[in-house]
Amino acid sequence: MKSWDVIVVGGGIAGLSAAMYAGRFMLKTLVITKERLGLLATTHTVENYPGFKKIVGAELVKKVEDHAVASGAEIIDGEAVEIKKSGEGFAVKTTKNEVFHAKAIIITTGTKHRELDVPGVKKLFGKGVSYCATCDGPLYRNKIVGVVGGSDSAAKEALMLSQFAKKVFIIYRKEKIRAEPVIMKRVEKNEKVEVINNANVVRINGKDFLKSVTLDREYNDSKDLKLDGLFIEIGSVPLAGLVKPLGVKLNVKGEIIIDKSSRTSVKGVFAAGDCCNTGWKQAIIGAGEGAHAAFSAYEYIQNLK
Amino acid sequence: MKSWDVIVVGGGIAGLSAAMYAGRFMLKTLVITKERLGLLATTHTVENYPGFKKIVGAELVKKVEDHAVASGAEIIDGEAVEIKKSGEGFAVKTTKNEVFHAKAIIITTGTKHRELDVPGVKKLFGKGVSYCATCDGPLYRNKIVGVVGGSDSAAKEALMLSQFAKKVFIIYRKEKIRAEPVIMKRVEKNEKVEVINNANVVRINGKDFLKSVTLDREYNDSKDLKLDGLFIEIGSVPLAGLVKPLGVKLNVKGEIIIDKSSRTSVKGVFAAGDCCNTGWKQAIIGAGEGAHAAFSAYEYIQNLK
Repeated sequence: MKSWDVIVVGGGIAGLSAAMYAGRFMLKTLVITKERLGLLATTHTVENYPGFKKIVGAELVKKVEDHAVASGAEIIDGEAVEIKKSGEGFAVKTTKNEVFHAKAIIITTGTKHRELDVPGVKKLFGKGVSYCATCDGPLYRNKIVGVVGGSDSAAKEALMLSQFAKKVFIIYRKEKIRAEPVIMKRVEKNEKVEVINNANVVRINGKDFLKSVTLDREYNDSKDLKLDGLFIEIGSVPLAGLVKPLGVKLNVKGEIIIDKSSRTSVKGVFAAGDCCNTGWKQAIIGAGEGAHAAFSAYEYIQNLK
Repeated sequence: MKSWDVIVVGGGIAGLSAAMYAGRFMLKTLVITKERLGLLATTHTVENYPGFKKIVGAELVKKVEDHAVASGAEIIDGEAVEIKKSGEGFAVKTTKNEVFHAKAIIITTGTKHRELDVPGVKKLFGKGVSYCATCDGPLYRNKIVGVVGGSDSAAKEALMLSQFAKKVFIIYRKEKIRAEPVIMKRVEKNEKVEVINNANVVRINGKDFLKSVTLDREYNDSKDLKLDGLFIEIGSVPLAGLVKPLGVKLNVKGEIIIDKSSRTSVKGVFAAGDCCNTGWKQAIIGAGEGAHAAFSAYEYIQNLK
């Protein structure tokens, strides 16, 4: 039986921060991660992690991954599909039917992109339609692209895309996009970026590749907006389903409820980062919660003895 | 009248993280700090801030200070002695009788060293007796030094001092020091470091300079322990007195009670870092709380309009 002190499920910055601290507590620590480095790694530029004025998202998380490994944590690729109580601890099963045992569990599964549910999205996904500007932005050099959404993330994606594209439309269903003020200012100043407000994308058109989107209102005398690329950034859904069968309490948004020490409602189960009820999702906040989770797991394990 | 959106009181990592974020929210932000860079700057080596495997404490906080300045925050040296409600906002008075006004306040005043209250400490302070191993350690090359205390910080100081001194005693009142496991292991392996447990320092001896300390039990057949330097690391006291007159609620330890979004019990007053009821004091946790405080202050100010 493969047995550990702590299993961290999720290899984003919150999970890696937890793993780094757990390693320092001399806990035998395993990180099981479906996506190496997590969501932050798809962020082009991070400017708000205290200590780094400007760093590529993937580079920042890689530093924390190296940090976790240096402190003794082991990281494996895998997707946890089930967590059960097992003796005094827990058993984590992966899609490959491997089972890992641990005394305590730290959940840092983050979020997934909310999908846009209109005709044409599924068909043209990967053919002009993308959920990741960092991944696919460079493909649209001198092209016309759109971003669906009005959040801070959507605005940042539009700015990033403007480095490649000749024109970037932000298509937002409400009156005014809700970006961080410093980002808002950059959007307003950027001549390539144009906001189409009070508009919804109702259909995505194209045969083998995206040709245009249909809006629910006219813009420049037409409901048809010609685009070479469409980036969807309409929020995220917490990935917390894994711990539901354990009885871990979630809030109405489906986020794991944690206290200030990153403890969930179930003893031995801790959580940190974007899958939690943190209100405001930030790398530095997830990293802090990860530290708390490791400390709480350490205390919990000490008391088992 | 000098007026700001946010005044951050305290220039350690929590305050600077808050200031960096407040700047990004385009808030006019002033940091008033008594001690530049705060307590962390007196830590020799930081190995547990996610993203930096190993960095000198002062260097890390300086990075965050530069980061705060780059995002538009202004930092001045000064000691806030009074915070009063003033109109819709607050007035902060310094020892120089300058008054600064702001809509919201973020308190990040940290902690101060707990003082050892035995005969001789005050007289020999700066003459062999120190509260800062990072500052004074290098003075004791090839000397014999003692560290009073049994916390993780005390153990780290002892390890750091062993780079200079030929012998380091840790003098601890209880049975077993309480260092982080990875630090404990290093203490046990370090041949220069020796723990004297179940012992209290009851007097500090010396005329112009420290000669020895008197213990309350014999060690190697004597209650007199000859030392060239004595470092006191017996914990810390939260610096939260400043907000008491405002009615901000403190816990029994005198720490400011904050919620998960770094809000105190008084509207418009936020707090972060070691002066708060965070349970476990870590740089990464203070930085995360600072981010929360800035966001909460931003939301608060938006709602004033």
